[in-house]
Amino acid sequence: MSSASLLRAAPDVIAAAARRVMARCEELARVSADAASIERVYLSPEHARVNRLAAEWMRELGMRTWQDAAGNQVGRIGDPAAPALMLGSHLDTVLDAGRYDGIAGVLMALEVVRLLREPGVDGWTVRLPFAIEVVAFSDEEGTRFGKALLGSSAVAGTWNDAWWDLTDADGVSLRRAFLEFGLDPARIGEAARRPDELVGYLEAHIEQGPELDRAGEPLAVVSSIASARRFQLVVEGEARHAGGTPYDMRRDALLGASEAALAVERICSAEHHIVGTVGRFEAFPGAVNVIPGEVQFSLDLRGEFDGERDRVWDALAHELDEIMGRRALRWRSREVHSAPAVFCAPLLREVVAGGIRATLPPRSDAPPVIFSRAGHDGMALGVVTDVGMLFLRNPDGVSHHPDESVSAGDVAHGIRALAEAVLLRGTERI
Amino acid sequence: MSSASLLRAAPDVIAAAARRVMARCEELARVSADAASIERVYLSPEHARVNRLAAEWMRELGMRTWQDAAGNQVGRIGDPAAPALMLGSHLDTVLDAGRYDGIAGVLMALEVVRLLREPGVDGWTVRLPFAIEVVAFSDEEGTRFGKALLGSSAVAGTWNDAWWDLTDADGVSLRRAFLEFGLDPARIGEAARRPDELVGYLEAHIEQGPELDRAGEPLAVVSSIASARRFQLVVEGEARHAGGTPYDMRRDALLGASEAALAVERICSAEHHIVGTVGRFEAFPGAVNVIPGEVQFSLDLRGEFDGERDRVWDALAHELDEIMGRRALRWRSREVHSAPAVFCAPLLREVVAGGIRATLPPRSDAPPVIFSRAGHDGMALGVVTDVGMLFLRNPDGVSHHPDESVSAGDVAHGIRALAEAVLLRGTERI
Repeated sequence: MSSASLLRAAPDVIAAAARRVMARCEELARVSADAASIERVYLSPEHARVNRLAAEWMRELGMRTWQDAAGNQVGRIGDPAAPALMLGSHLDTVLDAGRYDGIAGVLMALEVVRLLREPGVDGWTVRLPFAIEVVAFSDEEGTRFGKALLGSSAVAGTWNDAWWDLTDADGVSLRRAFLEFGLDPARIGEAARRPDELVGYLEAHIEQGPELDRAGEPLAVVSSIASARRFQLVVEGEARHAGGTPYDMRRDALLGASEAALAVERICSAEHHIVGTVGRFEAFPGAVNVIPGEVQFSLDLRGEFDGERDRVWDALAHELDEIMGRRALRWRSREVHSAPAVFCAPLLREVVAGGIRATLPPRSDAPPVIFSRAGHDGMALGVVTDVGMLFLRNPDGVSHHPDESVSAGDVAHGIRALAEAVLLRGTERI
Repeated sequence: MSSASLLRAAPDVIAAAARRVMARCEELARVSADAASIERVYLSPEHARVNRLAAEWMRELGMRTWQDAAGNQVGRIGDPAAPALMLGSHLDTVLDAGRYDGIAGVLMALEVVRLLREPGVDGWTVRLPFAIEVVAFSDEEGTRFGKALLGSSAVAGTWNDAWWDLTDADGVSLRRAFLEFGLDPARIGEAARRPDELVGYLEAHIEQGPELDRAGEPLAVVSSIASARRFQLVVEGEARHAGGTPYDMRRDALLGASEAALAVERICSAEHHIVGTVGRFEAFPGAVNVIPGEVQFSLDLRGEFDGERDRVWDALAHELDEIMGRRALRWRSREVHSAPAVFCAPLLREVVAGGIRATLPPRSDAPPVIFSRAGHDGMALGVVTDVGMLFLRNPDGVSHHPDESVSAGDVAHGIRALAEAVLLRGTERI
């Protein structure tokens, strides 16, 4: 593969693009339901506000814009009859979020469109055999309704009508939230795209992990998106008086669940490519002077390969049987999410690698290839089109946290690499 | 000490008294803020309703009644100028409570007054050198404001003005709750009793533990009420993305706090007379896909002796330093309650033992003596008068739970033993 640059933009143009991405990340961070932190969930007033901002920025670039039937904000430029290469990521956040997860990818996609329209650039307006769409997905995190990838699932045509009855923490159903946002649940199917309408989906995203930072690399090709399963678990014992009940009569659900959380760490950390996390964990009835009769907790399991992930779950279930049996507790689990590993399309892996080569100093070895333990919109889109991803270095791997960061220099590299990848895909010079 | 009975009530009279206690426990159980469980907290409408019922039952016995400045319901009979032997317990409950904790003791005290007035009984109306007061304490559990023994502390004259700003789960201050209940915070001092007004305080209570049930004994003398300390603990780590953060970069507050909960069990269970319980335990931010950055939990420590309890806390603190240091976590604690062990007065221990001897079949050994790991109103009253307690067998030790129980037969024994104890104290035939 050639590592020659197809993009003729001057370095200062790309640096200005990166500065604009950083400034807009700050601007979007201020659109929050909470004054002291970043919180922007699906179908909220903040969702509507960032969609309006994104639409404005899309129109500045000459794009035609619309909000689709699932609340995703879309911009399109190029031949109306041609299939589109879709670029994008998401604008929704977790609670107490950082500024870049998803957001940076949407804003970088807009800068790619700008670069490819600059005068003097070897741009797609003349030669690319596809239109370009930029999509700001409305729900990737699943913060509000507990189900992730709602926005991209609608685009992939895999919306499940059972989801309408999901409720948020205030008991508001997804159906009601749609209506209150001004969307018509009956029209959700209109958000779905057909495979023949799309050339592929390319996304830039911060790594949400420390591997690039540790390796001293600014960019990587993503090989696949992790296989994941999520469970809600309940441990049941007996709520009794904290003072009067001697140890040999206790059936303390908290102690069993504490052992379970430690077992997740012990069993998963013994495997190379598996992480397991207990994120929610609460004891009930939750009184100072009552032995916990029940603990509810979540388990998030991720692995590079489905088989390895499933083997670890089986080992954990066996361990929980042992712990709870020994403590005369009961346990049960409900699987709330299961996603097979999604492998990036070989062609798009190659164009992303070519984009990195064209951007960074020449090297003898190939650019780094890593798999993503975090989920991304591409997991949903994989059923309808080819998926490719570019990762940006995430200092210290801090994500889903206010300290999440990315450097303007790496964003500049990322914008250039993504633009080069689009041009490579368009000219098929690979 | 004689084991002759001073009480001349016929067995059927005592059996009827026990049946009335059981029926009234059911009646009071229906006075609940929650239709599906028993919940009756300080200064609630339910508190007012049970006070009215208790006052009615007191007046039926010829007692003069009043609600004191802290909302305790009091009934008095006998010479208005004489000091009083106070009998009683509390009518407030934990959440999802049982029917007997506290309640049975108040109702048994009323039956003792009834028995001592029955015609033909060697009753106090003639010979007792003290009046009798029955007190239904308004707050022993501390369910609403997090601070236990509010009712009995007011009677003991140890009310602390800092408590006025305590708030309930809805943010209502104790001061506002007083006003809404119709009590005047400025008059709280009027609830306080002077030592010279009281002869002592005698309370019957279910054990809230399994020791009597295991020993096959219906009644016991209480030697002391446990020494207790309560702490709120916080473990701080770092909230990070559950997928992207490898194990060697995690500072997972949940795993540290889980180890801490297990350390409480390990260290306390190695001591004979100490129990430690983690009752509240919650991870934050509490999202499925975020490593917990913080855990808040409670610790309740109880022991027969203050020194042993404090030594265990020191050992736990040392262990927490080790766990959190190893995991790069921080921890801190705030002590929210500390109560020294309260020892029952020797004279009242003797009259309670004499009451049990006079009630149960003759035996060569002394009646069982146990210390109470649970707190009781006597802990507060110990500063103003002598305290004595009688424990009733609590099947399987289930308390602070809807399945909490006591048998009518044991209640009958308890009523008799308590009446005999009052007579013994009055005649000083010990």
